[in-house]
Amino acid sequence: MAVQLTPIGEIRSCFKEKFGIPRQPNLVKEAPGTLVFYPEFAREEAVRSLEGFSHIWVLFLFHRAGPWSPTVRPPRLGGNKKVGVFASRSPFRPNPVGMSCVALDLVDLTGNRPVLRLSGVDILDRTPVLDIKPYLPYSDALPHARDGFAQGPPAPSLTVTFSDTAAARISLRQAEIPDLAAIIRGVLENDPRPAYSGGNSTPDRTYGIRLFDMNIKWQVAGSVIRVISVETDPAGEMP
Amino acid sequence: MAVQLTPIGEIRSCFKEKFGIPRQPNLVKEAPGTLVFYPEFAREEAVRSLEGFSHIWVLFLFHRAGPWSPTVRPPRLGGNKKVGVFASRSPFRPNPVGMSCVALDLVDLTGNRPVLRLSGVDILDRTPVLDIKPYLPYSDALPHARDGFAQGPPAPSLTVTFSDTAAARISLRQAEIPDLAAIIRGVLENDPRPAYSGGNSTPDRTYGIRLFDMNIKWQVAGSVIRVISVETDPAGEMP
Repeated sequence: MAVQLTPIGEIRSCFKEKFGIPRQPNLVKEAPGTLVFYPEFAREEAVRSLEGFSHIWVLFLFHRAGPWSPTVRPPRLGGNKKVGVFASRSPFRPNPVGMSCVALDLVDLTGNRPVLRLSGVDILDRTPVLDIKPYLPYSDALPHARDGFAQGPPAPSLTVTFSDTAAARISLRQAEIPDLAAIIRGVLENDPRPAYSGGNSTPDRTYGIRLFDMNIKWQVAGSVIRVISVETDPAGEMP
Repeated sequence: MAVQLTPIGEIRSCFKEKFGIPRQPNLVKEAPGTLVFYPEFAREEAVRSLEGFSHIWVLFLFHRAGPWSPTVRPPRLGGNKKVGVFASRSPFRPNPVGMSCVALDLVDLTGNRPVLRLSGVDILDRTPVLDIKPYLPYSDALPHARDGFAQGPPAPSLTVTFSDTAAARISLRQAEIPDLAAIIRGVLENDPRPAYSGGNSTPDRTYGIRLFDMNIKWQVAGSVIRVISVETDPAGEMP
């Protein structure tokens, strides 16, 4: 009954740890990633005509997810209501396959193998990819589908501010990552903290999120997140 | 590098063979199917709150697909232009995983295990299912995404007529399958014949398509398909 699948490539993204990854694609539209094919599948002909599509589906493995559970507590419901795993997009599924629709910015054929440049990525760095499919609006876009509980994108719940030193570090990277401030803001304003801790953290607790080759340190006071520092993360790599 | 996945259930659909299956979901909105869970996954709690969603994604195995090919000839391009397999939704993929968005008509909890009643199905009967996810319009619906070549649903290319005997057989099944005529029309008007034969078949050739527990026989003359008979298919089962 079981079937064996082999990843065709992997995602390189700005998200170096699970903490802070947007809970759906396109919540942070600027978040960049690249899709790198493994040698057997790195063939120009296999991506021929893909450049005509503005968006693609990426089917990937939740390679860092734990065992599945029949019920989950979606962050969107405040973490205190259980729904069936099949009524959620949780990673803790019987088959840990994720599915994200991301913007295809460029089919890059300049190297020795094709690379897809993506944005709106909500996928952990080094995630194995099982498949890519073109997004077909005529069959995939159902804007009037009824959504049982999520009912629209989450409204950002926090205001993000930057310390002077953090802002200075961000502007030093301006040429390389023009959207860095927007990405940090997008990640933080949706409150990456686990749902059950919402609003209960102590104001002087410092959180860290690894993004790109940086470690972003921040604190929460009421509904304001303050980015206090942007440090170099020796383990981080650019996507 | 390989990963092993285990189907959670299977699709029972009106499509008993590959020939005639709509090329995308929702092209034949009436086409019914059910999703039956295998015992390990047949748990009411795993589908809790799923009934709030009007549509679901079904991730399934193209279990009858042949080996993958780096390029394919999409029917939408007349079968004479090659595109990369990753720019297509062809079943002949490195990982033969399909993805269809279908209408969820009912989460049926009346039996000893949950069953999902679906419509707009484009999936072969007995197809193994890997996962189900709720359709989230806020992240999945991108009506303005650019579509490189398909550019909208195919316009039906043929007119479908019914012989008196075929019409009589269809009306005998009216109570059981109220949409039978619409389903047959939907399947045939998009021309299920392989693209390379389009318009070139001899008028007296009889085609057959197995649908539900029937074998539908039809002929083509110019742009008209005539359904000549609706016979019982002893191997067919109701979905």
